[in-house]
Amino acid sequence: MSRLITLSLCVLATMALAEARVRHYKWDVKYEFKSPDCYEKLAITVNGKTPGPAILAQQGDTVVVEVTNNLGTENLAIHWHGIRQIGSPWSDGTGGVTQCPILPGDTFTYRFIVDRAGTYLYHAHYGMQRGAGLYGSIRVSLPDGMAEPFPYDYDKSIILSDWYHNSTYEQAVGLSSIPFGWVGEPQSLLIHGKGKFDCSKLAPPSSDPSACNATNPECSPYVLTVVPGKKYRLRISSTATLSALSFQIEGHNMTIVEADGHYVEPIVVQNLFIYSGETYSVLIKIDQEPSRNYWITTNIVGRNATATTPPGLAVLNYYPNHPKRVPPTNPPAGPMWNDVAPRLAQSSAIKARQGYIHTPPPKSDRVIVFLNTQNKIDGYYHWSLNNVSLSLPNTPYLIALKENLHHVFDQRPLPDQLPGFADYPIYRVANNTNATSSNAIYRLKFNTTVDIILQNANSMIVNNSETHPWHLHGHDFWVLGYGIGKFDPDNDPKKYNLANPIKKNTVAVHPYGWTALRFIADNPGVWLFHCHVESHFYMGMGAVFEEGVDKVGKLPSEIMGCGETKGFKTP
Amino acid sequence: MSRLITLSLCVLATMALAEARVRHYKWDVKYEFKSPDCYEKLAITVNGKTPGPAILAQQGDTVVVEVTNNLGTENLAIHWHGIRQIGSPWSDGTGGVTQCPILPGDTFTYRFIVDRAGTYLYHAHYGMQRGAGLYGSIRVSLPDGMAEPFPYDYDKSIILSDWYHNSTYEQAVGLSSIPFGWVGEPQSLLIHGKGKFDCSKLAPPSSDPSACNATNPECSPYVLTVVPGKKYRLRISSTATLSALSFQIEGHNMTIVEADGHYVEPIVVQNLFIYSGETYSVLIKIDQEPSRNYWITTNIVGRNATATTPPGLAVLNYYPNHPKRVPPTNPPAGPMWNDVAPRLAQSSAIKARQGYIHTPPPKSDRVIVFLNTQNKIDGYYHWSLNNVSLSLPNTPYLIALKENLHHVFDQRPLPDQLPGFADYPIYRVANNTNATSSNAIYRLKFNTTVDIILQNANSMIVNNSETHPWHLHGHDFWVLGYGIGKFDPDNDPKKYNLANPIKKNTVAVHPYGWTALRFIADNPGVWLFHCHVESHFYMGMGAVFEEGVDKVGKLPSEIMGCGETKGFKTP
Repeated sequence: MSRLITLSLCVLATMALAEARVRHYKWDVKYEFKSPDCYEKLAITVNGKTPGPAILAQQGDTVVVEVTNNLGTENLAIHWHGIRQIGSPWSDGTGGVTQCPILPGDTFTYRFIVDRAGTYLYHAHYGMQRGAGLYGSIRVSLPDGMAEPFPYDYDKSIILSDWYHNSTYEQAVGLSSIPFGWVGEPQSLLIHGKGKFDCSKLAPPSSDPSACNATNPECSPYVLTVVPGKKYRLRISSTATLSALSFQIEGHNMTIVEADGHYVEPIVVQNLFIYSGETYSVLIKIDQEPSRNYWITTNIVGRNATATTPPGLAVLNYYPNHPKRVPPTNPPAGPMWNDVAPRLAQSSAIKARQGYIHTPPPKSDRVIVFLNTQNKIDGYYHWSLNNVSLSLPNTPYLIALKENLHHVFDQRPLPDQLPGFADYPIYRVANNTNATSSNAIYRLKFNTTVDIILQNANSMIVNNSETHPWHLHGHDFWVLGYGIGKFDPDNDPKKYNLANPIKKNTVAVHPYGWTALRFIADNPGVWLFHCHVESHFYMGMGAVFEEGVDKVGKLPSEIMGCGETKGFKTP
Repeated sequence: MSRLITLSLCVLATMALAEARVRHYKWDVKYEFKSPDCYEKLAITVNGKTPGPAILAQQGDTVVVEVTNNLGTENLAIHWHGIRQIGSPWSDGTGGVTQCPILPGDTFTYRFIVDRAGTYLYHAHYGMQRGAGLYGSIRVSLPDGMAEPFPYDYDKSIILSDWYHNSTYEQAVGLSSIPFGWVGEPQSLLIHGKGKFDCSKLAPPSSDPSACNATNPECSPYVLTVVPGKKYRLRISSTATLSALSFQIEGHNMTIVEADGHYVEPIVVQNLFIYSGETYSVLIKIDQEPSRNYWITTNIVGRNATATTPPGLAVLNYYPNHPKRVPPTNPPAGPMWNDVAPRLAQSSAIKARQGYIHTPPPKSDRVIVFLNTQNKIDGYYHWSLNNVSLSLPNTPYLIALKENLHHVFDQRPLPDQLPGFADYPIYRVANNTNATSSNAIYRLKFNTTVDIILQNANSMIVNNSETHPWHLHGHDFWVLGYGIGKFDPDNDPKKYNLANPIKKNTVAVHPYGWTALRFIADNPGVWLFHCHVESHFYMGMGAVFEEGVDKVGKLPSEIMGCGETKGFKTP
């Protein structure tokens, strides 16, 4: 009997050791000249690379990332996208919300537990730095002895992104200028950091012939080598700054099995629509004619970039064909950029997998309706929720709230919906002249259930409504439903899917449409909820939720040092 | 009697009031698209302008500048060049030396006394930001009732600079890359913020036709309107990032009367040679044929930029001719770029004005010989003093020294001359393989007299020795002498000018030459001494002097917040 107890204790101790594994990374973040699409420009790299190194961990591990800011004169913060930071809200890496930025020369240590297997991301979250190339993947595997509900032979990650030739500085200054300088469509789409800009578009003589070099190996297409007969799990994610994307593999159907770390009731697609901040796993069978390679492509949808941004191309290399062998076909055309219906259909089709359903509470305690509009404030373009455009305070919210610095942001509550929302004409050009900038926040009662209705509308351009991928920090939310047109608070909630809604951290609101979400405010901290389009968030498209901040433990002093917390700490 | 005393007290009180005047400025520093030479790029502006607003004050005034950093993601520090900061060493504005940088969104207040009339500058002193356009002039007038020793009718300031089309980020990353990316010669020379780049050099089709626009009023030539028969004091200064300059006014001699805030025994020149960080006053008579305008020109000397950088042009507009009337002559050619002799002659000719001579102590207590060389360290190019390349610590020196944070920089003393200096072959290509980077400093005994010998040498290119303008913070120094060739410690000091040496804060060391300086270490603080070429300092060409830091008063907490002083200050 005592031997049995001892054995059990040993097993438990071993398991505890396995659970307590620490994945330690040391990252050097700096600017470097890179040519991801053959055009040379400055990029922000992690240990010399963009995308940065993948974080590979197992459920329950502690991830520790020591980030050294070698950007010279620029600060930095890195967000761990999809990681809920339960118990570590100060490690969320959101500049202005959960921490002061990391100063040049400083090393900051992020430490958090990856509590659920799945596919996640990391990326810079300060200014528009993500667009400069600081992003990468986080792959969390199941605990030993647990199996995925779908078999596969190999597991690969592919990050999609878009790429601009001007700097994030130039983009940001344009956005906050009169006249307005719009960032425009990206020059390239990148598949795992590789694209192909047509250098001949640059007029000769370039001042520097190395500025665009089609033979630079940095911009050779990404090659995914696969073994015929095998089954692959591809983890597809997007860190695009602007573009909604469609992803295809020539001749191969994809079965979606995971979204944002949650299992999906399998659905077979030819086009995977993916919005910035989303992650998916798809399964593919390597079952086509094995004597050739196939195109992997990605296209912009939701915006007309046909004249400006060529599709992103990569190669599915059937082993043992040569990886540089060009597929004998033309890359297949993507879907029509302005065809909303299949995108809405795919969004709506994604449900929680049978056997892995977490049903939501049947009712919510609070409903917040966010009308998404464009506005002008003092002549500057903004994006707003209910006519309020978010401006971050100089002292991060988490610190301000925990340290009772009430004066650093507007303490007044924001309304749960726009006064007069019922009469707001979503199909009319926005001319909300009473919009304001504010750093006020939403304070949520701890452990209550909150519904968010994201209501899209016309922008300031006639007959234009954009696609916005909304990302919530610190949480997954249930996606209760989508619709086109004005949300009907009386009837639409009756159609909510409460049976098997998917949980996600990022969700699209489609043109002129609405999306309904539900989450439980059970994670003590301060959490940003924002459009994942870099320029939209820069222009104020976000909100901040506080919940249970009194339950947050003592803040590490390392997150301080700006705003009201700038000053001398006795060493 | 008592009435006389009362009257005297009133006069004293009035004078005291006048002396105590505070000049208050509020500055908004941000990036904006500007076209100073017709080519549009991001510039750092102060209140929307580059050059920024001039600071106008009277001797004894207190200048207060509230600087708000609206650069978005980038920090900031501003140096008040030529102001000795007696009693306010924390206001010197030297990132990494006297303060932590100003974070985005923060407002930092500089407060200092301008204790001596003369011509000074301000400019960014963090990273290579000066090159992005943050600079301006400081003009300190004499106290009421005091007169300059030279008459003039009008007083005008002109700042010269050079201008690059790439960003300071791109420049900095190139300098710290393998392979080395040299910044090259500037695209333009600016006269008071205006230059003219030849837009036709850009190949069509430009992606944006507004990117270079020869008719943009921002790049119309600078016009100095003058009244015939009058006498003008022109305060000429240079904030060039790289270029040594020659300045000319067609058909007009210039009489140099001031240098770096000190009166010069008048000398008449046709070319004013001016090195980055220097300021001069020259007098000109408006005595030429009044029916036309005249060219004002500036050229690069010391480097061969004839193929790359056209002369900077402005117009001396004889009133009432139209200011846009082009002078009927071709702009006069500047001096030969590689003719060192006249530059050395002019440097040597500048002496303190009779009646305003402060003679130096006849002997020094310490002599430091700084051999200026280029080196490679771990494959990266550096500039070094005695084979030591300066790297700034993460916690500024002033804070580290005052707060006894001994571990933040190397406490070991640096040698007063290179071991084996006597045998160092200054005409041979530098191949100092034993160079190191260090953040060690020179600690000077308070109130002692220090001589600095700046010894130039060959760079890493055959038959090349550059011109370095050396600038000392917190002090003026006497310029005791110049020479070409190797400094002879036995004989050259005998030729020092101890009778009427000029005092300056910036001085040139000419190709293969030496320059001897003397100063008294009587200003408690920590002071940077560095080559004022932005790229050279970035590559380590500087040293740091500490003197009497124990006499420095309590440091304002506002200068802290980085490195070891990052953290929470209880509000």
